[in-house]
Amino acid sequence: MTIKAHEKLLLTGAAGGLGQALRERLKANCATLRLSDRVSLGDAGSQEEIMLADLADAAAVDAMVQGVDAIVHLGGVSVEGPFGPILQANILGLYNLYEAARKHGVKRVVFASSNHVTGFYRQSETINADAPARPDGMYGLSKAFGEDLSRFYFDRYGIETACVRIGSSFPEPKDRRMLATWLSFDDLHRLITACLTTPVLGHSIVFGMSDNAVTWWDNSRARHIGYVARDSSDIFRDAVYARTSAPDLTDPAVQFQGGGFVKAGPFAD
Amino acid sequence: MTIKAHEKLLLTGAAGGLGQALRERLKANCATLRLSDRVSLGDAGSQEEIMLADLADAAAVDAMVQGVDAIVHLGGVSVEGPFGPILQANILGLYNLYEAARKHGVKRVVFASSNHVTGFYRQSETINADAPARPDGMYGLSKAFGEDLSRFYFDRYGIETACVRIGSSFPEPKDRRMLATWLSFDDLHRLITACLTTPVLGHSIVFGMSDNAVTWWDNSRARHIGYVARDSSDIFRDAVYARTSAPDLTDPAVQFQGGGFVKAGPFAD
Amino acid sequence: MTIKAHEKLLLTGAAGGLGQALRERLKANCATLRLSDRVSLGDAGSQEEIMLADLADAAAVDAMVQGVDAIVHLGGVSVEGPFGPILQANILGLYNLYEAARKHGVKRVVFASSNHVTGFYRQSETINADAPARPDGMYGLSKAFGEDLSRFYFDRYGIETACVRIGSSFPEPKDRRMLATWLSFDDLHRLITACLTTPVLGHSIVFGMSDNAVTWWDNSRARHIGYVARDSSDIFRDAVYARTSAPDLTDPAVQFQGGGFVKAGPFAD
Amino acid sequence: MTIKAHEKLLLTGAAGGLGQALRERLKANCATLRLSDRVSLGDAGSQEEIMLADLADAAAVDAMVQGVDAIVHLGGVSVEGPFGPILQANILGLYNLYEAARKHGVKRVVFASSNHVTGFYRQSETINADAPARPDGMYGLSKAFGEDLSRFYFDRYGIETACVRIGSSFPEPKDRRMLATWLSFDDLHRLITACLTTPVLGHSIVFGMSDNAVTWWDNSRARHIGYVARDSSDIFRDAVYARTSAPDLTDPAVQFQGGGFVKAGPFAD
Amino acid sequence: MTIKAHEKLLLTGAAGGLGQALRERLKANCATLRLSDRVSLGDAGSQEEIMLADLADAAAVDAMVQGVDAIVHLGGVSVEGPFGPILQANILGLYNLYEAARKHGVKRVVFASSNHVTGFYRQSETINADAPARPDGMYGLSKAFGEDLSRFYFDRYGIETACVRIGSSFPEPKDRRMLATWLSFDDLHRLITACLTTPVLGHSIVFGMSDNAVTWWDNSRARHIGYVARDSSDIFRDAVYARTSAPDLTDPAVQFQGGGFVKAGPFAD
Amino acid sequence: MTIKAHEKLLLTGAAGGLGQALRERLKANCATLRLSDRVSLGDAGSQEEIMLADLADAAAVDAMVQGVDAIVHLGGVSVEGPFGPILQANILGLYNLYEAARKHGVKRVVFASSNHVTGFYRQSETINADAPARPDGMYGLSKAFGEDLSRFYFDRYGIETACVRIGSSFPEPKDRRMLATWLSFDDLHRLITACLTTPVLGHSIVFGMSDNAVTWWDNSRARHIGYVARDSSDIFRDAVYARTSAPDLTDPAVQFQGGGFVKAGPFAD
Repeated sequence: MTIKAHEKLLLTGAAGGLGQALRERLKANCATLRLSDRVSLGDAGSQEEIMLADLADAAAVDAMVQGVDAIVHLGGVSVEGPFGPILQANILGLYNLYEAARKHGVKRVVFASSNHVTGFYRQSETINADAPARPDGMYGLSKAFGEDLSRFYFDRYGIETACVRIGSSFPEPKDRRMLATWLSFDDLHRLITACLTTPVLGHSIVFGMSDNAVTWWDNSRARHIGYVARDSSDIFRDAVYARTSAPDLTDPAVQFQGGGFVKAGPFAD
Repeated sequence: MTIKAHEKLLLTGAAGGLGQALRERLKANCATLRLSDRVSLGDAGSQEEIMLADLADAAAVDAMVQGVDAIVHLGGVSVEGPFGPILQANILGLYNLYEAARKHGVKRVVFASSNHVTGFYRQSETINADAPARPDGMYGLSKAFGEDLSRFYFDRYGIETACVRIGSSFPEPKDRRMLATWLSFDDLHRLITACLTTPVLGHSIVFGMSDNAVTWWDNSRARHIGYVARDSSDIFRDAVYARTSAPDLTDPAVQFQGGGFVKAGPFAD
Repeated sequence: MTIKAHEKLLLTGAAGGLGQALRERLKANCATLRLSDRVSLGDAGSQEEIMLADLADAAAVDAMVQGVDAIVHLGGVSVEGPFGPILQANILGLYNLYEAARKHGVKRVVFASSNHVTGFYRQSETINADAPARPDGMYGLSKAFGEDLSRFYFDRYGIETACVRIGSSFPEPKDRRMLATWLSFDDLHRLITACLTTPVLGHSIVFGMSDNAVTWWDNSRARHIGYVARDSSDIFRDAVYARTSAPDLTDPAVQFQGGGFVKAGPFAD
Repeated sequence: MTIKAHEKLLLTGAAGGLGQALRERLKANCATLRLSDRVSLGDAGSQEEIMLADLADAAAVDAMVQGVDAIVHLGGVSVEGPFGPILQANILGLYNLYEAARKHGVKRVVFASSNHVTGFYRQSETINADAPARPDGMYGLSKAFGEDLSRFYFDRYGIETACVRIGSSFPEPKDRRMLATWLSFDDLHRLITACLTTPVLGHSIVFGMSDNAVTWWDNSRARHIGYVARDSSDIFRDAVYARTSAPDLTDPAVQFQGGGFVKAGPFAD
Repeated sequence: MTIKAHEKLLLTGAAGGLGQALRERLKANCATLRLSDRVSLGDAGSQEEIMLADLADAAAVDAMVQGVDAIVHLGGVSVEGPFGPILQANILGLYNLYEAARKHGVKRVVFASSNHVTGFYRQSETINADAPARPDGMYGLSKAFGEDLSRFYFDRYGIETACVRIGSSFPEPKDRRMLATWLSFDDLHRLITACLTTPVLGHSIVFGMSDNAVTWWDNSRARHIGYVARDSSDIFRDAVYARTSAPDLTDPAVQFQGGGFVKAGPFAD
Repeated sequence: MTIKAHEKLLLTGAAGGLGQALRERLKANCATLRLSDRVSLGDAGSQEEIMLADLADAAAVDAMVQGVDAIVHLGGVSVEGPFGPILQANILGLYNLYEAARKHGVKRVVFASSNHVTGFYRQSETINADAPARPDGMYGLSKAFGEDLSRFYFDRYGIETACVRIGSSFPEPKDRRMLATWLSFDDLHRLITACLTTPVLGHSIVFGMSDNAVTWWDNSRARHIGYVARDSSDIFRDAVYARTSAPDLTDPAVQFQGGGFVKAGPFAD
């Protein structure tokens, strides 16, 4: 049983892949789930409220945030690409979100950060939340910015944030790298629930992964969150190996944790 | 099956809450269990021997220790309060106990230390046994003293001690903080058993907690003890949340690991 | 004697306080010094070339960077203030600068970062370059962004950067906090020279401070830069104490390394 | 199901205790298993190929390595003894092996290192792969040499190696020390399989142990290997305690992780 | 020139060796120097005030503390010996001192701790302020208690303390060990002055040593204090070597940092 | 004045470059200096004794060691080359040396190790003595072996060793890399003297460098040795820059600390 810890919970980026996966699941966490995105979210279902907003629009973001007790922020650009849109949605947009949270007294945020904040570490290294950022592109860089910005809002204004460095959250792992980075939708929901309900969250960085045998990430600094993964990529291992070939160890996409992102771009804006 | 590793085991503080919980359980660890406290312990049962003693009385403590192979020391003041009684029982008393152990050749002690040795760390931090002491009161300070004193008796005289920083050992967790700090009576017994039977104990600090999802403590420096928790506070989680309200994050009792102790006192002696 | 290691060196922010202090000094480091700012820099002197540019204007920045071998980047907003101008000059502007460096093959940058990247550490703590960012405002946050962005351009494109976390670079320390943070103009020049001439710079973070007795920063991870301070705030100590009163330890501006910045804002854009 | 990741796998030291335990098991990992030792290995069974070689004979080692895709190297002296044979088999022999791997393009090696590389740490300490070597004799020293040599072949030539510091791999633990160090044959096979199949191995040191309650070793730097132990010494614990007496804590063989090895020798060559 | 930072400064233990050395020197730090000890201090000189007190007497200590702005606490037992007097003066006495400071609003204390807090580290080790206590006797243990107690008064009540782990403060080093541990009287005064005047002290541990070539202690966590040693034991080195013989490396007094203290006792009370 | 701490000191490798530099200097450290090498050393001068020996010849080494109180071991192969001679002189030879020391009760050795033990760290990294070995060739590997072997002889037999990782000891630095690695002959002598005379040496690793501005090495774990450099490469800096061109950052010899060694070989034996 999940605890309905919040009266009104805001989910941004609700139209995206993870947003869709969480739309039903998060209803267990609140009385009302406010959904937001830049694009259409269809009709509001039971327990739902819909408020579209462009993250770069401060007034729209302010309205979106008003009246909620907590925020699960998946909104913004979620893949590597030109800097312009990332600047608008992930940098200016995040500033708008935290300013709104500050003004309206929202005290807890779950921020979808990314493993691409540390994508330039090697796949043979294990890192924890204190490893300095080594972003693998503009997207990862914007997420590093978000982690630092939320740290400021905690140190200065006491707004608690969990920066969830999501690995690869898909129905199942698609390749050998994802055997390490996979996060099932149910584990994603468990992790967000833990972030929303743990008594004291502080400002925390937590890697979003299932209980995979191979991993590069150490969540020992996030024990106070109480996340316990129940899924694992291991059941997909033989099938993934059977349909993929041995990796080329001279390929940066294989050497580094960020995978293909470390080779993306540069993009013209 | 527990191993009867000792011929005669001394349990101090046998009249207290944990003492009562261990009185039956520890009989599995020894041929004879010598029970001690300052107050009456009733009649000696099977396998039992009773020797009352005030810890501040060196002669009484010497007699209490004579003839045993190992000690489980729960005795002394176990809550925050005026310094006078703590000085007598927990500081002078502990000195008396180790002097007696030294004189009588007792080589292994399980010392009930406390999470209040490090009560001024935050509930959003994870600490291990090497984190400098940050006691949250006179009680925690006396336990820090005990840890240092037992370190000396190990370095100088080879007496091995496990300092067990007990979290909250009750039949079940009473509030949200205890979901992190809870130690079931059975896990307490498992932990003490591990300390008594591991081949080499050295001088070790180990946090006494069950296998709780939320935790602030890292026992990785105590792997040689071989403690494996089998209970967890998680089964009580929904009930605790249902009967308690959301914590006030501006309250020091919520911010710090020591809970209410960080606000106790000052006490007049 | 300083080594003229570069043919053409670009100095941005040349109209600001530090820019003015470096305008003459940096001529020792290069054949030609290209000066840039958003505002007038007067006539070009000997060894000088002037190219005004707004950092948010990608084309202007591209032209400014073309033809130089190395960059000393002081440009942008240098104090706490509204986010809008910081976003333009320090975030978009820095992206423009590194994109131009990438396109034109500039391989070494000295980036004026700031102690405000870590302004929310306490004045009783010593931190090194690996301490996670704790920015004390939008300005510090933008400098944290710059450090991460330059890390990316090193990991991906091999552009070396020294992120110089400048303390307080003024003719002399103005208050007790600056006794710890002071960086003389000559030491600033020594530090930049070391960054420009050390054989291998990599991506490095170095705290910009003179040889002050009181300090909060540990430059041990920047030994390969070879910076040796020759000035010290200590000669100003008695005078500063004489004209200032004892600090109020309950004031965040005294508790935290960032000083007054930790209390600035929020600003309306 | 184990993944047949290799076409032809070389197993050296196939006549030894662990070699015999792995001879059948490793057939699941490859199409053909090439077996080697200095002494007779009987007739080749199905999937098998046999090539005897003395490790100190460079030409024989070269022939032994030619044509394989990966190597599981158990060969050489495996107990403490005179330095001469260790020098020949474990030092010169290992050099010969890696030179052959370099010449023939073999890119992955599983090297049987030993807990005796760190045998002079105490049984009350937990160490990880970064703890400086403290070999407990000539055998442990030769394994430390092998770890450093394989590090060089990785840094210079990109040959990946897992240095598996095998604890005590026997059908069951023989004494109280082995309760900590035991590695079942099946877990040994699981560990080698993980080393052979993880996408990126790099140069890694991993302690070879089952999931024992008491342990002195922390494998957190080898998470990318994906080894999950399924056996445990714990089921043998009561029996081992029943047939052995309490250890003498003044005996170096009890104090140090290397056990009896720390007292062996000196040997005349 | 030393800064007269305090109006009325209390020096306890003023009759002891270090007390005498500081009696004149500390007048430069304050308008009035209040001197205290258990034994006679002679007549009050210029700038002086005398208040005798037994540290175990809470009322006397309260009176002694009333009216001062800061405390330099050298009082108590300063050598290894029976536990009784140490318990009274160094444990109960320190509690009395901090209670008095709390009641009277004294906000800064320089506490004479000792290298004997960590006397059981080896002379071939370098430790810093975070190394866990390893006291070498009852005296060192009482100083460890004092460090923890003052940590509590800082965390709970904001009273700042510098715990100065004094090495060997004598006119000159007496033996080879003291070449490492020597602290000249002038450097002792410089260190206390730094503790009294640094803007933010927090709760700090600092090793009290001159600028000796051989040392075992790392003061990098105390950089915010701004202590700069100007003396060195090195000028005494040849003379000390000439009059002493080579140390016996099997002697615990040579192996451990605490020197002869590690062999003292046990004492009958 | 250097202290004549030893009666008879053995210097091996006396015919080499450093051996020649030390032959006169070390006479200040002892009554008699025994010189050894494989090749002729000319006639014995005052205070000198000469005993030629091939390090691979155990009997000759035994004779060479008999009767001395301490050893400065520079002998063996000192550059990268084929493995055969390195195996004989640096591996077997070192074993012979320590066996002789053990048999004859020699208790202190200064072992000339090398920066090539860690040659595969980057020139933009700072490492200390605990950084895992990353040898850059067979020579560096043999020195890593020597460090581990001497650790064993300390842990098992109490023979103290200083492993001096000599940087570049020449009359003056030859290129830009040597500005970081340079060790003057006088500083080399100061360092060896410190190793020979410090009261407790233990088993220590110390980087042999002068007080150069640019450095990659942190000697903080060797403070108990008391080495203070008095020379610096800085006076040669401008001249070195003037006669050398800017380094190519894509060249491994520039990227890694080992310089050209990281590209040497492979060698046919």
